[in-house]
Amino acid sequence: MAIRIGIIGYGNLARGVESEIKRCPDMTLAGVFTRRDLSSVTIKTQGVPVYSVDELQSKTEDFDVMINCGGSATDLPVTTPKYAELYNIIDSFDTHARIPEHYAAVDAAARKANKVAIISAGWDPGMFSLQRLYSNSILPEGNDYTFWGKGVSQGHSDAIRRIPGVKNGKQYTIPVPEALEAVRSGSNPELTTRQKHTRECFVVAEEGADKALIEKTIKEMPNYFADYDTTVHFISEEEFAANHSGLNHGGFVFRSGVTGADGEHKHIIEYSLKLDSNPEFTASVILAYARAVYKLYQKGDYGCKTVFDIAPALLSPLSGEELRAHML
Amino acid sequence: MAIRIGIIGYGNLARGVESEIKRCPDMTLAGVFTRRDLSSVTIKTQGVPVYSVDELQSKTEDFDVMINCGGSATDLPVTTPKYAELYNIIDSFDTHARIPEHYAAVDAAARKANKVAIISAGWDPGMFSLQRLYSNSILPEGNDYTFWGKGVSQGHSDAIRRIPGVKNGKQYTIPVPEALEAVRSGSNPELTTRQKHTRECFVVAEEGADKALIEKTIKEMPNYFADYDTTVHFISEEEFAANHSGLNHGGFVFRSGVTGADGEHKHIIEYSLKLDSNPEFTASVILAYARAVYKLYQKGDYGCKTVFDIAPALLSPLSGEELRAHML
Repeated sequence: MAIRIGIIGYGNLARGVESEIKRCPDMTLAGVFTRRDLSSVTIKTQGVPVYSVDELQSKTEDFDVMINCGGSATDLPVTTPKYAELYNIIDSFDTHARIPEHYAAVDAAARKANKVAIISAGWDPGMFSLQRLYSNSILPEGNDYTFWGKGVSQGHSDAIRRIPGVKNGKQYTIPVPEALEAVRSGSNPELTTRQKHTRECFVVAEEGADKALIEKTIKEMPNYFADYDTTVHFISEEEFAANHSGLNHGGFVFRSGVTGADGEHKHIIEYSLKLDSNPEFTASVILAYARAVYKLYQKGDYGCKTVFDIAPALLSPLSGEELRAHML
Repeated sequence: MAIRIGIIGYGNLARGVESEIKRCPDMTLAGVFTRRDLSSVTIKTQGVPVYSVDELQSKTEDFDVMINCGGSATDLPVTTPKYAELYNIIDSFDTHARIPEHYAAVDAAARKANKVAIISAGWDPGMFSLQRLYSNSILPEGNDYTFWGKGVSQGHSDAIRRIPGVKNGKQYTIPVPEALEAVRSGSNPELTTRQKHTRECFVVAEEGADKALIEKTIKEMPNYFADYDTTVHFISEEEFAANHSGLNHGGFVFRSGVTGADGEHKHIIEYSLKLDSNPEFTASVILAYARAVYKLYQKGDYGCKTVFDIAPALLSPLSGEELRAHML
């Protein structure tokens, strides 16, 4: 029987889960829960019910794993612990600094209810974290480097759009090629914030807006842009729609370490992602980990987990025998 | 108390374990077992006993995990199952096609003795296998590509050295840059053996040897060279010693997959290793997994495992709390 997946929310990530579940032959979408007016939500998959989140209390028998697609800032810290008392659940909580408290809250709820939860599944946190853990465990003496991009930063794009006179805006985070090459060379450079990434902004200005002021406001914005070399391009609405409507992203994780009696041998581990769709890729990671949630629940291994706690074989629909024969 | 590690064998890999264990603060080298005449073996670490392999039967109380550094062709298939009845054990068995039978033999022995074993730890099989498993689980629709090198192939170097008139030889496997770029572009190329790798040979010929014949013999050697574009360089013994005494290696694992309703979004996952010392890096992987062997034994989770079965957190000396706070 297929694993019955539920989705909470219906934004970009949830729609990614909806499209990617079709690539998982062992899973089926069993329902979507929304906070919006039900009449305003039409999902793409025919025959799948859309419920109000108020109905989560009464549908516990219909789902094996619930995917919580809320936002990390205010939603997930409340809803993942809440629904972990009702369902096996997974989220992509990505506020790195608050992971310990989120973990504690979800773990307590899941243990109380004998459910399984996984938090912070995605690519950072998620696949990038895994690469850091593996490579630090293998090469204890060395340095870590993480670069993001080229890709769309939602937070920085939002910050641009809040500036008076800005009609639309998008910000790309771009790793500095020379910094990437320096890390790849094994020279273990010390890199400042400015040396690692540049920021490129595409802005549609309101008619008559002061473009020079907008550009200055962006470039001097503390935390977001002031510490970076930032480029601002003013473009038309048509060009924006044609070339900047995507949600591509990616990045690089390096471990640059040494071995040998005197550390005389260098080793570079490099992991990179080049993603046309950040939400669809994140959804794909979440679905693989939803499979692990289901398997752990079958084994009675309750509580909250992260990607660090999940044996890789649990992510695959293949058996241990098949994996050893064909993928090892 | 530190994890007491034993080493069986004292070749390149074993010497790598010996040098890298110093970077693992939670481990100590407790002894080396050799088949050679004991008087002929002097290890680098002072105060650590060297035993005959005949003494393995009687030293079971002195070691927590035994690292079997034998060869995959004839040694490990015999000795890992044999010693899995006496010790928690780990090896780097790398004959991919014979992994299922090796797993079955080691698993039976370890279960009978309530011991933990991990087979095929290293980078391929090992870290490359993990990348294949993770990325296939995340992107079910896509293609896998593995490239090896640039690096020294021991098997191909041996094959060269067996040719009459060859005094010394080394072979480098080199990924074709255009093939790497084609894969990176997401074009999902179909690549022949010849299109993926070239082979470069450095040969020291005996005095008076027929170099043209040696070159022809190399280039036409079935299985090893005939399917590749091979370059042969004749060099002096001095140049060989100066530039070709290393054991560098590396490679690339790609997953090129799609998401979206119509597969319209491309994603490239790339993992690469650039290693100055193949044996020291392999030893580093083995030591991280030896830590997992020890933890599983403490939990009573007996039997044979592979990298697929090991939760990443088990590889680290850090606690779950530390990992979640600093690495997720």
